[in-house]
Amino acid sequence: MFWLRRSAQWLGQRQQRSMGAFRMPMMDPKLEDYSLVDVEEVRRFIRDCLKRISVPESKLRCISEFLVAADYRGIYGSGLNQLDLYLNDLRHRRADMDAEPEIIRETIASAHVNGNNALGVIVGNFCMDLAVKKANNSGVGFVVANQSNHFGIASWYVLQALDHGYAGLVMSNGAPMMVPPRSKVSSIGANCLAFGARGRDSYFMLDMAASMKDIGSIEWALTKDEYIPHSWAADESGYSTSFPMLAMRNPRLASAGAHKGYCLAAMIDLLCGVLSGANFSTQIPPWKSNVQSKSPNLGQIFFAIDPDFFVPDFLERLDDFNECIKNSCPVKAENPIQLPGELEMRHMHLVEKLGGLPYHKGLLKKYRSIASRYSVRPIQLFSKDD
Amino acid sequence: MFWLRRSAQWLGQRQQRSMGAFRMPMMDPKLEDYSLVDVEEVRRFIRDCLKRISVPESKLRCISEFLVAADYRGIYGSGLNQLDLYLNDLRHRRADMDAEPEIIRETIASAHVNGNNALGVIVGNFCMDLAVKKANNSGVGFVVANQSNHFGIASWYVLQALDHGYAGLVMSNGAPMMVPPRSKVSSIGANCLAFGARGRDSYFMLDMAASMKDIGSIEWALTKDEYIPHSWAADESGYSTSFPMLAMRNPRLASAGAHKGYCLAAMIDLLCGVLSGANFSTQIPPWKSNVQSKSPNLGQIFFAIDPDFFVPDFLERLDDFNECIKNSCPVKAENPIQLPGELEMRHMHLVEKLGGLPYHKGLLKKYRSIASRYSVRPIQLFSKDD
Repeated sequence: MFWLRRSAQWLGQRQQRSMGAFRMPMMDPKLEDYSLVDVEEVRRFIRDCLKRISVPESKLRCISEFLVAADYRGIYGSGLNQLDLYLNDLRHRRADMDAEPEIIRETIASAHVNGNNALGVIVGNFCMDLAVKKANNSGVGFVVANQSNHFGIASWYVLQALDHGYAGLVMSNGAPMMVPPRSKVSSIGANCLAFGARGRDSYFMLDMAASMKDIGSIEWALTKDEYIPHSWAADESGYSTSFPMLAMRNPRLASAGAHKGYCLAAMIDLLCGVLSGANFSTQIPPWKSNVQSKSPNLGQIFFAIDPDFFVPDFLERLDDFNECIKNSCPVKAENPIQLPGELEMRHMHLVEKLGGLPYHKGLLKKYRSIASRYSVRPIQLFSKDD
Repeated sequence: MFWLRRSAQWLGQRQQRSMGAFRMPMMDPKLEDYSLVDVEEVRRFIRDCLKRISVPESKLRCISEFLVAADYRGIYGSGLNQLDLYLNDLRHRRADMDAEPEIIRETIASAHVNGNNALGVIVGNFCMDLAVKKANNSGVGFVVANQSNHFGIASWYVLQALDHGYAGLVMSNGAPMMVPPRSKVSSIGANCLAFGARGRDSYFMLDMAASMKDIGSIEWALTKDEYIPHSWAADESGYSTSFPMLAMRNPRLASAGAHKGYCLAAMIDLLCGVLSGANFSTQIPPWKSNVQSKSPNLGQIFFAIDPDFFVPDFLERLDDFNECIKNSCPVKAENPIQLPGELEMRHMHLVEKLGGLPYHKGLLKKYRSIASRYSVRPIQLFSKDD
């Protein structure tokens, strides 16, 4: 089978062994809506599209890996689904395909990085790598980046820390698309936060937006031609809507837990935007606006912690913690309590079982249109003879 | 007037000047239910109670200051209201009044502290002080403590970082009193998170629990003899309740934003409990349990960031950020958008205007019973001639 990161491989092996104890039923999608695609074929498709707009050869792997990783983890809204967004950003020079991030200032434990408007994933990989190196020396590494771009799923960078046996905390601000309580308009991003750590037989991976749902999930519902719950977003006139199309036009997402989600988003914006010297709040250009050609100048923070510095038996302690939560009495035995990251892990197992990525017909249609727009060979479905 | 911290003084002066721009209407409590008490008198009362159980003279000021600070900020549930809890903990040796925290291990940017079961506020002050010193050297300071106790409002320690011009992030785990989604029982604490930073003319101070409301707010409703909203907590049989008395018995708080609040609480528990070597989740003895005499062995993290290391104009940028949020179009002009910490700031101004702390008659009744139990002079109400 294929593996996206060493940590994923490690987790898969471990998790499979403890599957009995964890009782994770495999998720079964409605099979008639899905078609299997070989992971290598998805990578090929992404690389072909990127080559068409002259992205340097050295960056193809890095971009294709992180998009495939989101799909592999089942977060389809932030995976290949966003390829269009990245291609547009690169074509319109909102992101610079040749740029490399650089360190502005650093100490033994912290650094300030200028992303130089490189692609978000390039900045993210660079910064988490730096944070891990710093944590190596001083127990913790804290890196703040500005002049960055949309960087996909935040858990991708946390996994990078997990690869080195560290715990990771990653945050990013984003275009204003969340409505603070008492407000009529979106004035803050549905900023994201990811935190993860690994134990000996289990892991913990929280990846959340401060809104009820992120824009990717709404776009994903649109792709699947489904309604969304009324609590997710409002339309342009401020009324909650169940039509993803209306929710996507000038997005007004509801914050999670009313003022708590908004306060958390403000904290993330303060750390990522204000502290880094990047744009924040309404300074960030609107999402997917085609009229503007300004770079978003997003800010991000990357925090790596070496657990061994604090406790010698962190791996066992994390397993115990996960057991504590899992074993707390569920309302229905058939609906066990879920740990953050468990749903994603279950999807990864499903992909392995199926031998390829199950793509929804709505997504495949979108990819065919991308293929014809960029004149590349469309994604080929998995054939049983492969 | 009196001031609790340099930062409070600083903030009061600045905020008063910009009051016009911020349009903060003074909060008016129902005056017939409240009586004014001089701050010095509250301090005297706390000190007298603590002396009765032989708390060392050197610690009296530190404890009384942090309890008064919560009331001054209007967080009555976590202020003097909790004196009873601290006195009980000290009497039953669940906290050690003579203990001092000590450093187990440290690098230039991080430290692991053993709280030695000292009072939470002693551990908290020590750790934030250490984090600030470390941030001085390396831009950031990260301190993790175990063997600690309940430490009151987390924003107290963040204010300590603000005093030095730093941004602060503080988290603590607590006794399991929050119900994860799909679970019947409380298996995780309503763990708290506070983050703050200051600008030139405004400040930002988020202090939140991962539950819809913390247990202090429910206790505060009980004291005021009020109902609570159905969304806050469930009773012992698992049904949501509007009676604070039922919600307090074996607490089952609802998490904020359903699974997001629970995931956040789990992240905090992982950082504070698992990483520090303290108790976590259901290992922590139940809240206010009188049968047990075990120390809770709580864990806490303290993170100080020097904003000057990252951007030279952080103060102005923070003011701009706050303006951005405040100026986003409110639904009703008379209900402007509130920043985290604004409600507390408004209460501080009210206290200054009144010249004393307005205590609810329910609280004063509770204090009279404490006074008679510990044979100290009851709290004297403010007289106009003072």
